[in-house]
Amino acid sequence: MQNNQLLEKLGSLTVEEKIGQLVQLTGDFFEGDLDTVVTGPLKKLGLHQNYNVYNTGSILNVTDREKIIQLQTDYLEKSNHKIPLLFMADIIYGYRTIFPIPLAQTCSWNFESIEYAASIAARECYEEGVHVTFSPMVDIVRDPRWGRVMESSGEDTLLAKKYAESMVHGIQGRQGENSIPADKIAACVKHFAAYGAPVAGREYNAVDMSEHMLREYYLPGYQAAIDAGVKLVMTAFNTLNGIPATGNKWLNRDLLRQEMKFDGVLISDYAAVEELIMHGYAEDEAAAAKLALVAGVDIDMKTAVYANQLENVINGNEELQQLLDDAVYRVLKLKNDLGLFEDPFRGLKESRPLLATRILSDEHKTAARSLAEQSLVLLKNEQELLPLSKQAKIALIGPYAEETSTLGMWAIKGDERDTVNLKTGLLKHVDPEQISVCRGSHLLPDYARDALGKYVDKLPVETVDEDVLLQEAVRKASEADVVVLALGESIYQSGEGGSRTNPTLPEPQLKLLHEVSQLNKKLVVIVYSGRPLILTEVAAQADALIQAWYPGTMGGEALANILYGTANPSGKLAMTFPRSVGQIPVYYNELKTGRPNLPENGFYRFASRYIDEANEPLYPFGYGKSYTTFDYSLLSVSRKEMSADKPVDIEVSVTNTGKYDGKETVQLYIRDQFASVARPIKMLADFKQIFLRSGETGTVQFSISEDMLKFYGTSMKFESEPGDFEVYIGTSSQETPLTFNFALRAGEHDE
Amino acid sequence: MQNNQLLEKLGSLTVEEKIGQLVQLTGDFFEGDLDTVVTGPLKKLGLHQNYNVYNTGSILNVTDREKIIQLQTDYLEKSNHKIPLLFMADIIYGYRTIFPIPLAQTCSWNFESIEYAASIAARECYEEGVHVTFSPMVDIVRDPRWGRVMESSGEDTLLAKKYAESMVHGIQGRQGENSIPADKIAACVKHFAAYGAPVAGREYNAVDMSEHMLREYYLPGYQAAIDAGVKLVMTAFNTLNGIPATGNKWLNRDLLRQEMKFDGVLISDYAAVEELIMHGYAEDEAAAAKLALVAGVDIDMKTAVYANQLENVINGNEELQQLLDDAVYRVLKLKNDLGLFEDPFRGLKESRPLLATRILSDEHKTAARSLAEQSLVLLKNEQELLPLSKQAKIALIGPYAEETSTLGMWAIKGDERDTVNLKTGLLKHVDPEQISVCRGSHLLPDYARDALGKYVDKLPVETVDEDVLLQEAVRKASEADVVVLALGESIYQSGEGGSRTNPTLPEPQLKLLHEVSQLNKKLVVIVYSGRPLILTEVAAQADALIQAWYPGTMGGEALANILYGTANPSGKLAMTFPRSVGQIPVYYNELKTGRPNLPENGFYRFASRYIDEANEPLYPFGYGKSYTTFDYSLLSVSRKEMSADKPVDIEVSVTNTGKYDGKETVQLYIRDQFASVARPIKMLADFKQIFLRSGETGTVQFSISEDMLKFYGTSMKFESEPGDFEVYIGTSSQETPLTFNFALRAGEHDE
Repeated sequence: MQNNQLLEKLGSLTVEEKIGQLVQLTGDFFEGDLDTVVTGPLKKLGLHQNYNVYNTGSILNVTDREKIIQLQTDYLEKSNHKIPLLFMADIIYGYRTIFPIPLAQTCSWNFESIEYAASIAARECYEEGVHVTFSPMVDIVRDPRWGRVMESSGEDTLLAKKYAESMVHGIQGRQGENSIPADKIAACVKHFAAYGAPVAGREYNAVDMSEHMLREYYLPGYQAAIDAGVKLVMTAFNTLNGIPATGNKWLNRDLLRQEMKFDGVLISDYAAVEELIMHGYAEDEAAAAKLALVAGVDIDMKTAVYANQLENVINGNEELQQLLDDAVYRVLKLKNDLGLFEDPFRGLKESRPLLATRILSDEHKTAARSLAEQSLVLLKNEQELLPLSKQAKIALIGPYAEETSTLGMWAIKGDERDTVNLKTGLLKHVDPEQISVCRGSHLLPDYARDALGKYVDKLPVETVDEDVLLQEAVRKASEADVVVLALGESIYQSGEGGSRTNPTLPEPQLKLLHEVSQLNKKLVVIVYSGRPLILTEVAAQADALIQAWYPGTMGGEALANILYGTANPSGKLAMTFPRSVGQIPVYYNELKTGRPNLPENGFYRFASRYIDEANEPLYPFGYGKSYTTFDYSLLSVSRKEMSADKPVDIEVSVTNTGKYDGKETVQLYIRDQFASVARPIKMLADFKQIFLRSGETGTVQFSISEDMLKFYGTSMKFESEPGDFEVYIGTSSQETPLTFNFALRAGEHDE
Repeated sequence: MQNNQLLEKLGSLTVEEKIGQLVQLTGDFFEGDLDTVVTGPLKKLGLHQNYNVYNTGSILNVTDREKIIQLQTDYLEKSNHKIPLLFMADIIYGYRTIFPIPLAQTCSWNFESIEYAASIAARECYEEGVHVTFSPMVDIVRDPRWGRVMESSGEDTLLAKKYAESMVHGIQGRQGENSIPADKIAACVKHFAAYGAPVAGREYNAVDMSEHMLREYYLPGYQAAIDAGVKLVMTAFNTLNGIPATGNKWLNRDLLRQEMKFDGVLISDYAAVEELIMHGYAEDEAAAAKLALVAGVDIDMKTAVYANQLENVINGNEELQQLLDDAVYRVLKLKNDLGLFEDPFRGLKESRPLLATRILSDEHKTAARSLAEQSLVLLKNEQELLPLSKQAKIALIGPYAEETSTLGMWAIKGDERDTVNLKTGLLKHVDPEQISVCRGSHLLPDYARDALGKYVDKLPVETVDEDVLLQEAVRKASEADVVVLALGESIYQSGEGGSRTNPTLPEPQLKLLHEVSQLNKKLVVIVYSGRPLILTEVAAQADALIQAWYPGTMGGEALANILYGTANPSGKLAMTFPRSVGQIPVYYNELKTGRPNLPENGFYRFASRYIDEANEPLYPFGYGKSYTTFDYSLLSVSRKEMSADKPVDIEVSVTNTGKYDGKETVQLYIRDQFASVARPIKMLADFKQIFLRSGETGTVQFSISEDMLKFYGTSMKFESEPGDFEVYIGTSSQETPLTFNFALRAGEHDE
């Protein structure tokens, strides 16, 4: 449809019909006859009886082909203007083929693989008729207490940017046109803004930060998604410096639309428009409707506020009328970009047999396995215990040994029956008699089960007494050469609403670990979790330790490949693992202080330190071991003095000095020595991945441009400042064998 | 001296001499002959050889009468202009008569007593020749990991304001004149600004917050000190939103001097000017000198930066020259306000015998005891175990049973030999045969001792094996009717540089507690600490629990009076006690969220909550039990609709319904229902103390004026907004039996 036709369409709508385009409901509003709807979902949501559901613009979380065809057909039949419904859904890290959770994906540092995974999710969505996915989430997170960290790309701004870009490209395509091609759907970056920084890691809690912090660390991820052409942005639940994001005009109009140049659809998070009232920000629904519209929210997700109030609120006011028209235009344009006016059934008409081969196809599963292999992080490997010998007798013990619920909490279309669990994965490498398997402990203590509310029904039923499980575990462990403990938090302890004050392994599993570790067997511990857990105790007892995250449909196969060396671990932490809860938040790019804790000062009290704990985390950002080892040397640095048009080009030689072929992620960090704003002690500026066969040497190139030295100064301008910089190149944020300095000479920013 | 004479004096100084006035050194710079100084302290500090120490303006932490007389005499003899030296010192909560630490004092909520205590500290300083004390510290603190919380007034802004005001009045006097009278000295409010909010509670770490947060919660305490006429302000060590406070022009000139109307001396914290370099904010000493001067720092405490660099930095630049003159003028004016030009030996000339009776006099000690009694907080008292019967056989056990090191870490002139310890206190009430005493456990585990660095030498030497101590404790406990465990963190685990990731009782003491509690004796636990410790486990095992803080010189007597009922506990927490480290920061006036955790929803996942811990702390702000009980009833509320000139007047009737006479602190909290910025769920707006005899009823009056409803809106204006307000009146922030609503009608702020 041409733009003028779109405007014509807009012009033909009544105010009521326009408002409908801004309303998002679930599928049940279209079930049965009108009476049922009025007494059912409408009433439950508090929608006016005379609300015409056939004005509704979009549908939330209806994800099945047949249902979508039925709803769209019914809607087009009964609605006045035949503007097709938009179907939006939470397809966060896979539709049916479930990839590792986003935090895990980011640990691959392989954004091509991530883009490919997103394209597969989009393809599966496309084939089932979903038009929009609420992904990617690029909220920076420094606090592992927050459950939703699993959906994020971690603590680093550069990784958030790369993640945002690759996800948007994967979901929407890279063509840069307005229209979204076949096999692609629309992406929605979230949550604008800074949702990942709630006070005390408590879900939905207030967020407070300086504008400098917001701009420097939190906004670039969203900006990268916008620059990649993301079609939608979702507001955040939180207040930002006292103002709820969903009612924040400065945030959504001045920043998002004006400065950041976003011209797509801004959708509220679930019920967030109505929640402006609970925030104490809007006095009633009418005020909430007005505040949200004025703040720039186009679609009201799953509340009655826009539907019930907007007409009265606007009440002929021309300015508000214009805001309404703008919002509706953006929704219509999104539908047009998806080609819905030409084909309301996009993706659904192709012949079913063909599609059936694509959803959960071998190609998709292979991609899921590959990304899982790259996402796992080898945290410890004493005396090269891993990879395991195929001759070794293995005792595979723990609640995750045969667990299929390893998809994470936000895989709404994932099916656990598709999961390759760890045991199954191992059996692809060795015969059953090589492996004895048992549960070893309950997944959770009873009180923790109870605290999961309605999710308790989804947890495995623990039928065997803890002591019996433990005895069996000790017996089987005693008989084995190597014990593999598969431990983890429940997926329901993580994800949205899964904030934990004490993010450790559940007590029954810690008890299992302690008992087994006393046998002095070779001990491999695999940790499934949606966040960095506090693993200090665990690491002390394990000979080898693998962070498995929630690795998705093919997780067991990926883990088995790693354990038996078919794949070599290459994952690098996208988030710091604290030693203890009391270190939180601990992150690699902390600001310099006036009293750094210098090792040469020993236990100097008046330094920025704790008296009962190291400042350093258990495992730093960027950390992750391989079965092989890499040596670094600096081949060349093009210049020691750079300027805006003369970057510093760097050549690094990397040699695989170990026995295994492997991939290294070469990380480049920069420290700005002096600036008008205190800068981080170290900041990830670039990274490169290189695959090297055993004994092979390769070269990696970097180029440091002036752009990479920019930051937000006191006047909130994004500029570089002349001065000295230190470069650190290495294998993690703490192990950087190569260092050198360069200076940025004053150019156009001359003092 | 008249102002024109002061200006004349200023005009007579060379640049070098002017700069000297801005330099603060320690006393050792004036020891011995010139050679010794040049090779000693000068060299150590990096001062130029040709720096003339007899230009120096002030001296740090020389606190003894004889020494001060000697230094001043020597200085006046040798210096060119005979401008007397200023003597400044860290006299934070008492000179020789040590009062409870500030956090404890604030728990008295008795700001008359606090003012009186400050006046005693000032008097003792005056008599010893100290001119300036670096007190009060009014940094709001929400994170008990931070060691320096002991010096603060806690988490609440109203209490910080009251504390600031009463301290300044106590130290400087209330006369509101420029000159400071006899028995008074100059106060210095610190640390400007927001030093109490370091990331992760780690000392000296970066601080980041929105301007709204800063203005609404953090600045009012400093403002109250300024309004009370405080003569000095000290900068903070931290960065605020990336800019080190000590080099922050916006903070110190725009905010502090322009907006907040401070016209006294701004002094850096210890070495903070030089630390601008470590912050990565100043490239070298010259840059640090310039940045600090431009930012408005008058005195450079204990670095060579101003002394070495300022002359070159200014180098004839008129603007900088003017800044220098302004700074020197303020220092001279302070000396003049103290009357030093007329009497450089202020306070020192009076006859020694008279003075000797005042320092640590009975009057002073009585005041210290009284404030300690009011500062102790009774957290638990099951079955009215307390007060103790004089007939009961007591086992007094624990490292604090006979400990005299209960003055806290910042009592630099305190002498432990003056301390009345707990045992001594108890023996004033009962005969020795009623009490058996033993140590019970080591104070600290060995690793924690080691981590205290040089302070390890100040810790008690543990000569007896832990197990032996424990056996003795169990034996003595078994023979007693009531066990009183006197436990606590070492004073060196608290205070500056005392950040703890795990602020609990030390393990040996927890072990002692567990062993003793298994005897099922009546168990009283007394906790000495500089912060809210995590006491969840402790509270579960104790029948009665008293938070003793570091109660100062007379602590043992105060505690004994409480234990035996000579005094009735009335302290109320000025800071929340978390249940666990993972709840930190937890504070009573958190902002409303869009998804509050409502009890009626049970374990509802999608609320702002944790899945493994309550949102509520162990003990809330404002909490503290009495031996008696108080009933509340609402007598009258003058109006339900108020306006700027029509306050809401409230009469509350309080009845002492228990057996003991006692004091109640009636707390009034306000909740602003709807506003243009999300407001706290509850905010302390006022409080009144009332003493009631058993059975007596009294009346307390409040008046809610429009001023009390003001807050900083999005445009950073401090204004009220018409709307509805909920009032809560009661005995703590969580127990508020009286509630009612009122509305503020639009006045001049009409929409």
